[in-house]
Amino acid sequence: MKQSIRLGMVGGGEGAFIGAVHRVAARLDGEYRLVAGAFASDADRSRAAGMALGIEAARAYPNWQAMLEAERALQDGIEAVAIVTPNHLHARVARDCLERGLHVLCDKPLAATFDEAIELANLARDAGSLFCVTYTYCGFPLVREARELVAAGELGEIRAVQVRYAQDWLSAPIETAGNRQAAWRSDPSQAGEGGCIADIGTHAYHLARFVSGLEPQALLADLASVVPGRRLDDNAQVLLRYANGARGMLWASQTAPGNANNLELGVYGSRGGITWRQEQPDELWFTPLGDSPRVLRRGASNLRRAAAVSTRVPMGHPEGYLEAFANLYTDFAAAIRSRRTHGTDRTQHVPAFPTIDDGLDGMRFVHTALASSRAGGVWMPLRGAASR
Amino acid sequence: MKQSIRLGMVGGGEGAFIGAVHRVAARLDGEYRLVAGAFASDADRSRAAGMALGIEAARAYPNWQAMLEAERALQDGIEAVAIVTPNHLHARVARDCLERGLHVLCDKPLAATFDEAIELANLARDAGSLFCVTYTYCGFPLVREARELVAAGELGEIRAVQVRYAQDWLSAPIETAGNRQAAWRSDPSQAGEGGCIADIGTHAYHLARFVSGLEPQALLADLASVVPGRRLDDNAQVLLRYANGARGMLWASQTAPGNANNLELGVYGSRGGITWRQEQPDELWFTPLGDSPRVLRRGASNLRRAAAVSTRVPMGHPEGYLEAFANLYTDFAAAIRSRRTHGTDRTQHVPAFPTIDDGLDGMRFVHTALASSRAGGVWMPLRGAASR
Amino acid sequence: MKQSIRLGMVGGGEGAFIGAVHRVAARLDGEYRLVAGAFASDADRSRAAGMALGIEAARAYPNWQAMLEAERALQDGIEAVAIVTPNHLHARVARDCLERGLHVLCDKPLAATFDEAIELANLARDAGSLFCVTYTYCGFPLVREARELVAAGELGEIRAVQVRYAQDWLSAPIETAGNRQAAWRSDPSQAGEGGCIADIGTHAYHLARFVSGLEPQALLADLASVVPGRRLDDNAQVLLRYANGARGMLWASQTAPGNANNLELGVYGSRGGITWRQEQPDELWFTPLGDSPRVLRRGASNLRRAAAVSTRVPMGHPEGYLEAFANLYTDFAAAIRSRRTHGTDRTQHVPAFPTIDDGLDGMRFVHTALASSRAGGVWMPLRGAASR
Amino acid sequence: MKQSIRLGMVGGGEGAFIGAVHRVAARLDGEYRLVAGAFASDADRSRAAGMALGIEAARAYPNWQAMLEAERALQDGIEAVAIVTPNHLHARVARDCLERGLHVLCDKPLAATFDEAIELANLARDAGSLFCVTYTYCGFPLVREARELVAAGELGEIRAVQVRYAQDWLSAPIETAGNRQAAWRSDPSQAGEGGCIADIGTHAYHLARFVSGLEPQALLADLASVVPGRRLDDNAQVLLRYANGARGMLWASQTAPGNANNLELGVYGSRGGITWRQEQPDELWFTPLGDSPRVLRRGASNLRRAAAVSTRVPMGHPEGYLEAFANLYTDFAAAIRSRRTHGTDRTQHVPAFPTIDDGLDGMRFVHTALASSRAGGVWMPLRGAASR
Repeated sequence: MKQSIRLGMVGGGEGAFIGAVHRVAARLDGEYRLVAGAFASDADRSRAAGMALGIEAARAYPNWQAMLEAERALQDGIEAVAIVTPNHLHARVARDCLERGLHVLCDKPLAATFDEAIELANLARDAGSLFCVTYTYCGFPLVREARELVAAGELGEIRAVQVRYAQDWLSAPIETAGNRQAAWRSDPSQAGEGGCIADIGTHAYHLARFVSGLEPQALLADLASVVPGRRLDDNAQVLLRYANGARGMLWASQTAPGNANNLELGVYGSRGGITWRQEQPDELWFTPLGDSPRVLRRGASNLRRAAAVSTRVPMGHPEGYLEAFANLYTDFAAAIRSRRTHGTDRTQHVPAFPTIDDGLDGMRFVHTALASSRAGGVWMPLRGAASR
Repeated sequence: MKQSIRLGMVGGGEGAFIGAVHRVAARLDGEYRLVAGAFASDADRSRAAGMALGIEAARAYPNWQAMLEAERALQDGIEAVAIVTPNHLHARVARDCLERGLHVLCDKPLAATFDEAIELANLARDAGSLFCVTYTYCGFPLVREARELVAAGELGEIRAVQVRYAQDWLSAPIETAGNRQAAWRSDPSQAGEGGCIADIGTHAYHLARFVSGLEPQALLADLASVVPGRRLDDNAQVLLRYANGARGMLWASQTAPGNANNLELGVYGSRGGITWRQEQPDELWFTPLGDSPRVLRRGASNLRRAAAVSTRVPMGHPEGYLEAFANLYTDFAAAIRSRRTHGTDRTQHVPAFPTIDDGLDGMRFVHTALASSRAGGVWMPLRGAASR
Repeated sequence: MKQSIRLGMVGGGEGAFIGAVHRVAARLDGEYRLVAGAFASDADRSRAAGMALGIEAARAYPNWQAMLEAERALQDGIEAVAIVTPNHLHARVARDCLERGLHVLCDKPLAATFDEAIELANLARDAGSLFCVTYTYCGFPLVREARELVAAGELGEIRAVQVRYAQDWLSAPIETAGNRQAAWRSDPSQAGEGGCIADIGTHAYHLARFVSGLEPQALLADLASVVPGRRLDDNAQVLLRYANGARGMLWASQTAPGNANNLELGVYGSRGGITWRQEQPDELWFTPLGDSPRVLRRGASNLRRAAAVSTRVPMGHPEGYLEAFANLYTDFAAAIRSRRTHGTDRTQHVPAFPTIDDGLDGMRFVHTALASSRAGGVWMPLRGAASR
Repeated sequence: MKQSIRLGMVGGGEGAFIGAVHRVAARLDGEYRLVAGAFASDADRSRAAGMALGIEAARAYPNWQAMLEAERALQDGIEAVAIVTPNHLHARVARDCLERGLHVLCDKPLAATFDEAIELANLARDAGSLFCVTYTYCGFPLVREARELVAAGELGEIRAVQVRYAQDWLSAPIETAGNRQAAWRSDPSQAGEGGCIADIGTHAYHLARFVSGLEPQALLADLASVVPGRRLDDNAQVLLRYANGARGMLWASQTAPGNANNLELGVYGSRGGITWRQEQPDELWFTPLGDSPRVLRRGASNLRRAAAVSTRVPMGHPEGYLEAFANLYTDFAAAIRSRRTHGTDRTQHVPAFPTIDDGLDGMRFVHTALASSRAGGVWMPLRGAASR
């Protein structure tokens, strides 16, 4: 009989958004059981949140340190931890988890600063546990199909990678009007140095890299705070150059009215092109050069393996954000089980979950973009000197 | 601490489609725990399915009768049963559950014949337990918004209701080529008298009725089996007439290549019109007469209550079929909890889950459509003589 | 040096809609020169309209009889006549033109009554001149591609034909509020017996027939006047049965808010399906059964001949309604030139313009639909007794 | 009686694309009559082209100089000239036309080099004739609506302007395989210094400027030739900075498979946002911040004046590229007639046609982008030192 993985959570109390998402993702395929948590920085609020979630009172802890300490002593203590705090705590919590041999699922960005991320990645490399950074969008089946199409050479040599991630919920200065999500995201002491670039730019960057398989060599960024009084960037323009001569463009904005979660990727090569839109995730448009566009559909029998195994309901029955998120959790569960059984992760289905290296790469992107923008918008290398 | 509801399942073993959907739906909001099942008509296969699902071996039963008998004796026995068998067993299983005071979640259509459905509905009326028929599509938040728009008079007097539900997976005679889903659905002894009309026509019918709030008085149907050798209808055309003079059209087909799960509804009144498409469920188009179409979006702050409480992730992060299904399960859980607490269901959020009356109404539709078609495609009353 | 064809027009004065469309269509490819007209039933208004159009004052006539009489005497008199009056005059003007050997381009419907249409068609059969009925939508390049796909067997045996034509401009009783277009269209003495069924239902019917290549054997219609006080139908539901067992559904409405000119066709066969939407005419979706949908694009190099020769600008540069209309005019011009040169029309590009037989067929459809609806919505044969 | 304007054409012989577009545009509203031309650089081919177009043999000239000379001597000689040659001739032909007092409609880009453009603009400023540069896309009615929405403050302060113009027809090196359009466009001696940046980048730039009303102060460009062996850029990335702090991004590519003529504009402000896509030009999405998107439709009664007067057929009947092009021709005709009548152009409907100043501005953009890219992708001012 299959045993579900015992999960603890740090953050995700009342009023949070991403905590609830992680919980559904953990639960969706029945792979995890949430059994403990430090849901809030206040003991009472943490306990109340635990109650509402059906957690035993004793396992709703006042802080993560207490949770790690207490759970370690239990026979059926937690095996993995989901970190869903504001960004500035990611690295500290993760470090403590790694040091206790717990597997970690950490929301992006990996850390508040690049240095912190480097240190954490070094630690993780030597740790005995697994690490997933939840770049949600690579969990979408058709994003995985897109990656395989590129890898199989169906697009030929890649020449251009265009990605945009536009939202509008920060178009007004709601951080000063009581919106908690906005408040911490625009406060450097909680969000880290980057605003929009770290919150969603890093998603767009990872998506482009994941699908194209290309590593950019240099970037140029122009970040702006278009809302008066805002302390972090809310509109980010980035140009990218790849080793093979391909070019990339990335636009991330949280101040573009009419855009809810408009993440769109285009990858164009010598033999074909693809586009994918997160708001209509069950379609992938693929055009072989000179032929008609094909609309690849999630659940169709003609998809490759990575997409096929990441889907739950038949073609035409829409899947969405939670299912994509759950794919990361479920892939991570497979790795944990493999580690349990074999002493090492023998799952080889590619692509699986994003690792701490992807998280580190994302921080390098944020760090370099900030540096480029501060220097007036100049080209900066992403590899070489700036790498770990 | 909130206790999840203990759920048993009948049907849904390996190779089934809808069983897995019910399981995710039950799990998604953490409201239910699947603890028992009779997953297949063969004891070994039922046990194997239970194992794969993490069910205790002793609670994976060889048949539903055994499950009901054994669980009744347990202190923590099942409280509710999900029925996901082929259609011909729906009524029998449901009857047995009702007689033991168990709450029932039954897939559509309610029964194999209208007579069976009438009998079951009579039984349910006197039973002490709750009954949900899983017409999935009324679980979509924007379908609920649509219903409220109509009810609030935003469309004026309704004049036309257009609905189509087109699929293509039965375009070839795959029932004779080993496809199990197709095999039982095209076998009258398992599916009942209706093919496409019962399998998806009834969904379309319910959706139109749910949103428009109109009860049709008469229908005319022309059902066809367009695939040579098929024993049940696979293309269904229906005209409808409503009491207020409004007209309806319904097309259901499982033999329309290019259509995956193309359910589309249009409701048109004297002051405005709406359209909703299941394959893009996070948008509802609403046009006040003489003005520009508005694209209402799931998760937007300007939606009414029913849509607002049925949504999990922010605008722009797509939700889909599983979330809609989960909304039915979660609404049903609220009713069960209310019954537990108050001795009666005091939940009053409307719309909630579809009841057995909706299931009966669907069977009346199927029954009348079959009769109309057999008579050569003539008008037949849906109310009056034919009603229970 | 190519000579343009000298064209006269009946109707199309100030305030008319379709007259201007015919004029642009005639002019677009430089094939015609509008040199005369009886633009209004009032001599002054006809002259004023002619002036505004750059017509010599002497050739802006007070009525069509005067035009036909005077032009016949001119060396460079008109060769063809465009009839763009309200419906009730179509047949009378056309008859007079045919009797003088003039080629005719007549707007649809062909006549006010089926009897009138039969008589005219008989006359035309013996006449020496050519006749085009301007069913606009078969002028769209991708509609022509669709027809060729079907004819080439790419869809296999056709099983279902679904067509809708929805508008909303008659949702309120604007015919009593000074709208001239609405006034004549809802007045039986000018529009004929059919309202919506004749105005746009006949377009939908022709489109379905044109693309599918199928002739329906029987129909059943339920026509309604949903706007209180309206004298003709404004919402029309029709079921169709074809000789090969295929089924059809047609919905035409001018009272469906949110629909501007929403004409959509789906044709589904044993091997594949297609859909085309007039409001996005440069895309034709084609799905081979079991494969991904292909989006065929106007102007693409992989289209067949009929579409290729009907296009003016490259793929991605949208064409529209006027270009489709112009295709009919230009195809008709080719036939006229062929007749001039060879004494007979040797153009063989298929499909070309719709002929009087298509116009007659449209009237048979309207006539039978009205009869069916008046009888309460019963099946009536479209071939056999009712045919000419 | 209205007299059409006598038009001559330079370029546009067999095999050309844009010449035919200009001819239809001139003809569509009956405002011009093409009476003369120098259609090709070879006398025989020019004459043959003239014949095919119905031009008198004597007025199909071997070169533009001959045309200007001969037509000046005619009582009914040409009044305006359409210049549709490859780019390198634009300025020379235009200059000769201006010197003879002829009105000019010149395709974009205005000239092969910025210096040439400056000289021509200086000449034009003192000339007695009118000058239109055919930036097609500002002829679309909803582009005009978009401009008015911005100008009326409906979007608040503009913060970001995103524009892309992607094609795929130059994805392979077809210039070496006999494609004439590709050959001259990728040959610096005919196209000028810029490839994609001049051919379509300049369209995108003008569109962004036209709608936003903003003048960029600086740009940074990274141009690439992604097809091996290509002599001019075929993928262009540009960042823009505006005086008010707003940012812009422009991507133009002719090597992005799957894109036919994918021009898309987004303008985002503090109060709302709009998007417009050329391939679906009859829709303009407008979202007031915090409200549902509205889909503004060409032909709707709620549009402003500029859009209303630029439309020919009702809402829902698609218009396209040729109609947009014709709007420029027709607006220019109004200016010519006003000049005829009043001695000066008194038409004041804004926006009207793009002038030589817009053409010059486009050349400044191309020139600066090339300079920025050659310098490695650095910021360069667009105003100040670089201006005329």
